[in-house]
Amino acid sequence: MSDAYARAGVNIDAGNEAVERYRQVTGDWTHPNVLGSLGGFSGLFRLPGDDKRALVGSTDGVGTKILIAAALARYDGVGADLVNHCVNDILVVSATPLFFLDYLAVGKLDPNVAAAIVAGCQRACKAHTMALLGGETAEMPGLYKPGDFDLAGTIVGIVDIAAIPDRTRVVPGDAVVALPSIGLHTNGYTLARALIGPDELLTPFEGGTFADALLAAHPSYYAAVREIQAVADVKAMAHITGGGLLDNVPRTLPDGCKAIFEQQRWSVPPIMRELVRRGDLSPSERYRTLNMGIGFTLIVPIAHAEKAVGAVAGAKVVGWIERRGPGDPAVVVHPART
Amino acid sequence: MSDAYARAGVNIDAGNEAVERYRQVTGDWTHPNVLGSLGGFSGLFRLPGDDKRALVGSTDGVGTKILIAAALARYDGVGADLVNHCVNDILVVSATPLFFLDYLAVGKLDPNVAAAIVAGCQRACKAHTMALLGGETAEMPGLYKPGDFDLAGTIVGIVDIAAIPDRTRVVPGDAVVALPSIGLHTNGYTLARALIGPDELLTPFEGGTFADALLAAHPSYYAAVREIQAVADVKAMAHITGGGLLDNVPRTLPDGCKAIFEQQRWSVPPIMRELVRRGDLSPSERYRTLNMGIGFTLIVPIAHAEKAVGAVAGAKVVGWIERRGPGDPAVVVHPART
Repeated sequence: MSDAYARAGVNIDAGNEAVERYRQVTGDWTHPNVLGSLGGFSGLFRLPGDDKRALVGSTDGVGTKILIAAALARYDGVGADLVNHCVNDILVVSATPLFFLDYLAVGKLDPNVAAAIVAGCQRACKAHTMALLGGETAEMPGLYKPGDFDLAGTIVGIVDIAAIPDRTRVVPGDAVVALPSIGLHTNGYTLARALIGPDELLTPFEGGTFADALLAAHPSYYAAVREIQAVADVKAMAHITGGGLLDNVPRTLPDGCKAIFEQQRWSVPPIMRELVRRGDLSPSERYRTLNMGIGFTLIVPIAHAEKAVGAVAGAKVVGWIERRGPGDPAVVVHPART
Repeated sequence: MSDAYARAGVNIDAGNEAVERYRQVTGDWTHPNVLGSLGGFSGLFRLPGDDKRALVGSTDGVGTKILIAAALARYDGVGADLVNHCVNDILVVSATPLFFLDYLAVGKLDPNVAAAIVAGCQRACKAHTMALLGGETAEMPGLYKPGDFDLAGTIVGIVDIAAIPDRTRVVPGDAVVALPSIGLHTNGYTLARALIGPDELLTPFEGGTFADALLAAHPSYYAAVREIQAVADVKAMAHITGGGLLDNVPRTLPDGCKAIFEQQRWSVPPIMRELVRRGDLSPSERYRTLNMGIGFTLIVPIAHAEKAVGAVAGAKVVGWIERRGPGDPAVVVHPART
């Protein structure tokens, strides 16, 4: 579907095929304590000896955003990007973060660079009263070029099983509330790097540079979501990461429901508009490769929508749930009238 | 200390400096539930609402062993190597594994290769009745060459706090019991790759090939350790990974104690002897870069040593604990008389 991304060297079909193959090779046995399944934002594991709570685990990386950070020697942000990404991934099941572990792989270990990255992890962990419990730093000169590095991390949280959002409660007429993104967050960078060359990174753009726009921090939605949950019945949540609205929102819908978005209800960040223009991205490419301005979605009863958006600055009602007929797509985005 | 390793491109001093810098940048705040500290084999986190148990987390990678696996397209082993490595890392605090998450980063995603790697993870998880709870597969063409990949993983386990081994109970006269390694496991591969060229991988060696010796599986010591714990008072345990006996065993000793190893008490695998010979590795290089035949150590009272080694095939008493005077090294290895 995403030709632009494929042209940039990332094969979303291969990704989907890999997930299907993982299901095959892991299908022989599932631990009896597992509540979730492969393919969600995170995995849920019933805490042994405690029938009320589950542990939640999720692993993610910051993708090729690190190549931009490395090119500009701006290392402080990527650690927080990663932690916040992971916090949001387990927030969709309403989990409270407990601890985080990082994995940093480098071609040549520079202790100051590594410390700057870990300091960013620690800062974001502390902001969530979460422990940076450990990590691994691997120097692998045969695999990475001297200035290159890769960064991934794993978060573990905990949730009362009764508090896990239940998408089967979503019904036609519910509202979709969005929390705004402030840039690409941690997805779409291979495409962005194909469209904005390394020599353009310091070119002025929208009051800063392209680098500033591309390295804008991945925010945590933890506090905002807790504010909304305090005033509204949140039935389902999605973190809009790789796959965009088109691939992430369907995971929060029951059979027989689709989500309708009206793009005129929110604003698309300038960096997204620039990428759409440069890449001549079709609507499906835009909404599968980029978050297009929406970082997180929550589905609430229409009667709670006003309270929900009133609880958090920037929150907006951006769409609604309708009955999904045979052959209907799970997500429809109506373009802005321009 | 390890010139051979530095010549191969890995800087152990930079690694130690990075750990020190991590302590600095994370020293401003520690979560009150954290029981361990950075630098151990794993991190311990008191389970909220349960004063008797702690969660244990550890992240690790398989290092450049993957470059040999990739060169020979033998992908089935590295997943199990990684899981078993992680199991052993949390076993030193006597933790029982709960779940595992993998991180696979590739230059070009081949779903069959990815599935073979994940299948190896699943197989090793199942062998420990542990859930493969999730993972992340990232395709990053700008960072990795098409056939290259990196693999890391995170394990979470649980332990009764009262059952965590307490190294302060170790006293002079205690015995050191070793479980044998069957090869490099997941450490020393950058050195091994510098000493054994890619064109030699299929050269016959010790009834197989160099590739067979280098890709020998990293074993799990879980079952063996549980057998020994059933018959002996295990005071401290070490997983012999990067840093070898010289860097790993000291973490299991209290102040005022040193560990004496007698190398004639165990056999060094042929692949280690070959690397020592080719690299002309000094004793300190050997025992810091390679496991030299010992995969895991347990410290038990001398009165329990016979029962301990009788419980598990291959277990041997390889040394003992002595009083450590000022200026003494924490670990001494007496060479075999040859």
